[in-house]
Amino acid sequence: MTKIERMGAQAKAAARQLAQLGPEKGRALLEAAQALRERQEEVLEANRQDLAAGEGRGLSAALLDRLRLTPGRVESMAAAMETVAKAADPVGKLLSGETRPNGLRIEKITVPLGVVGIIYEARPNVTSDACALCIKSGNAAVLRGGKEALGSNKAIVKVLSDALTAAGLPLGCLQLVEDPSRESALELMGMTKYLDVLIPRGGAGLIQAVKGQARVPVIETGVGNCHVYVDGSANIQMAADIIFNAKTSRPSVCNAIETVLVHQAAAEKALPAIRARLDEKRVELRGCPRACQILPGIVPATEEDWSTEYLDYILAVKVVGSLQEALGHIAAYSSGHSECIVTESYANAQRFLQEVDSAAVYINASTRFTDGGEFGLGAEIGISTQKLHARGPMGLEQLTSCKFLIRGDGQVR
Amino acid sequence: MTKIERMGAQAKAAARQLAQLGPEKGRALLEAAQALRERQEEVLEANRQDLAAGEGRGLSAALLDRLRLTPGRVESMAAAMETVAKAADPVGKLLSGETRPNGLRIEKITVPLGVVGIIYEARPNVTSDACALCIKSGNAAVLRGGKEALGSNKAIVKVLSDALTAAGLPLGCLQLVEDPSRESALELMGMTKYLDVLIPRGGAGLIQAVKGQARVPVIETGVGNCHVYVDGSANIQMAADIIFNAKTSRPSVCNAIETVLVHQAAAEKALPAIRARLDEKRVELRGCPRACQILPGIVPATEEDWSTEYLDYILAVKVVGSLQEALGHIAAYSSGHSECIVTESYANAQRFLQEVDSAAVYINASTRFTDGGEFGLGAEIGISTQKLHARGPMGLEQLTSCKFLIRGDGQVR
Repeated sequence: MTKIERMGAQAKAAARQLAQLGPEKGRALLEAAQALRERQEEVLEANRQDLAAGEGRGLSAALLDRLRLTPGRVESMAAAMETVAKAADPVGKLLSGETRPNGLRIEKITVPLGVVGIIYEARPNVTSDACALCIKSGNAAVLRGGKEALGSNKAIVKVLSDALTAAGLPLGCLQLVEDPSRESALELMGMTKYLDVLIPRGGAGLIQAVKGQARVPVIETGVGNCHVYVDGSANIQMAADIIFNAKTSRPSVCNAIETVLVHQAAAEKALPAIRARLDEKRVELRGCPRACQILPGIVPATEEDWSTEYLDYILAVKVVGSLQEALGHIAAYSSGHSECIVTESYANAQRFLQEVDSAAVYINASTRFTDGGEFGLGAEIGISTQKLHARGPMGLEQLTSCKFLIRGDGQVR
Repeated sequence: MTKIERMGAQAKAAARQLAQLGPEKGRALLEAAQALRERQEEVLEANRQDLAAGEGRGLSAALLDRLRLTPGRVESMAAAMETVAKAADPVGKLLSGETRPNGLRIEKITVPLGVVGIIYEARPNVTSDACALCIKSGNAAVLRGGKEALGSNKAIVKVLSDALTAAGLPLGCLQLVEDPSRESALELMGMTKYLDVLIPRGGAGLIQAVKGQARVPVIETGVGNCHVYVDGSANIQMAADIIFNAKTSRPSVCNAIETVLVHQAAAEKALPAIRARLDEKRVELRGCPRACQILPGIVPATEEDWSTEYLDYILAVKVVGSLQEALGHIAAYSSGHSECIVTESYANAQRFLQEVDSAAVYINASTRFTDGGEFGLGAEIGISTQKLHARGPMGLEQLTSCKFLIRGDGQVR
């Protein structure tokens, strides 16, 4: 057995025990959150070393910021764990129940998935979030964070797992892969014997690599080439406000928009109003030929722009001849995350909701709301952009499976 | 573009149209079922040629039987399609709905998965079943049956897709891969651009091959190493009847049992009673050392027997010292399909239901009930033995995904 196989076997055994627990899970997580506060100096010290090493290796300022922990950020991590700890237990919920004509009583209830693997990048807060969500839903977690954050993650997992086992949870319910090599990632992705699901969290490159190589079932998350379509009937001011918010409130996240489609009937009024708002944040516009006519001086868009997730202060703009053309563009280029129509037309709103095949489809609201917290799910483990198992923000409920319980008195078939 | 990519692209386009349809889907399926009856001679003639070729290639009698169609079997296929056609539409169902404090109205509804690929073996009835289930749930289907049934499947798909398109469904909503090579299967399994899910139906070899090679998300189905545990408190007669039914009513199916575990307190009475029933069908028993003592003359079991899905008149038998030992054996060897406890003890029944991690867990009833029809789901596309997306019998509901619809009046974040 390799080291990672031993971790997998231990996680599987821990999962079998975790599946039997109820309120103990939440109580242990409260202890773990408290331990994170009390032992924060261990975590901050390890983080300082990661930061120093990262600076030495020339990591970008943005990456260093994602990696950086402060007492305030540790407090947020602990508070987020407490919120999850106090949520309703997603395990053991009755999904359906029926007595069959032969007298068999068939019930369907929620159960944990088992062992959840999470592969992520530089943010150390994913470590405590994933721990809370997995444990609360009765799953063992095997985490593999980015190598830049290895020291921080080791410290966080040490603090949390000490507290969890002291509170009576099984050893091995929370484990970290400490080998940052590519081989360890590949081994984890192939470990179908022990892992029930693998959730990659990070940029498109990471997600595609995991999706392309994993044998363990993967839930694809967080790639967002999102669109706002400004209908001919749109309230132009509302459209400009929604676009401004959806592009600039946090351009680096997956629910930010990357392309605006504008109906030709609205284009001459809407495009200057949209540009005026976006100029406040110096957003670069890349336009189709018609958009470039209306907004002289913007960069002409290439075919590649329509499929690019900029995650930056850049926005592609296209004038379309009809709602039909907008729907076709979205079907061709969207990653299926979040799309919005700004319209005053009932018929066009209904058609957009019906025909757009994305996890979240909006009328007259910013795509930035696609988020577990905003949707009322509590914390989220990611936003699924696939159709199998879970779609959209994934909370505790999406970390469960189900089983059928059948009670009889001797029935045979 | 290869031929299979063209099929995928056409299926994707058809799926986009199918997703917008309602009662038209059921009406078209009724037409297709009727066409199957009216044009059954085309199908039977193609099937006779498949059978003749199969006999020439020396296929086993069992395989030829699975391949064989008769007017009665075609009638059953048509009737099964009609049942699905008349079922409630699984698409557009409201799963949840809530108004958030900021006034956003968030609803979650069911939508089709998109394009469903199905890889199966010799049974031509899978072709019509899969067609009905996929189309009714708004999905385009790309089918790849076994090469032994290629002529039959071509005839069935021709009849059905003629009728579906005549009834107004989009061209390409039902397609058959006519190239029986390994390369075509591999290409299908890698076609993540067009396929949303792949469901293999067949023996363990097929399922493992698909699971090991597919890049498209797979739903693992139908591998059943199922157990009956006879508790110390069991009604011996009931235990013998359930075991007889679960082993012999149809040994070749996945919900038949392969191993019986007997508590030592019941073993001396139960094992002879079980053997007496199984002798009626000449079932071969393979026992642990203690079982061999109680039942002289049976074959000693090897380690391999505990993990074998015989699908035949063979049953492994083990005496265990405790419920705990039975639970451990099941956790180690079960494929997670169906397990049963025969008991009169409330505490043991509850513990078995709680701790056994299988799709269907029974008290005092035959595992043979794990079936879409018996569970009241209508027809089934397979029985999932994985935990992601669907677990247990999969009906129309399990062929859907969901999306969030969000209605606002200008909300930004």
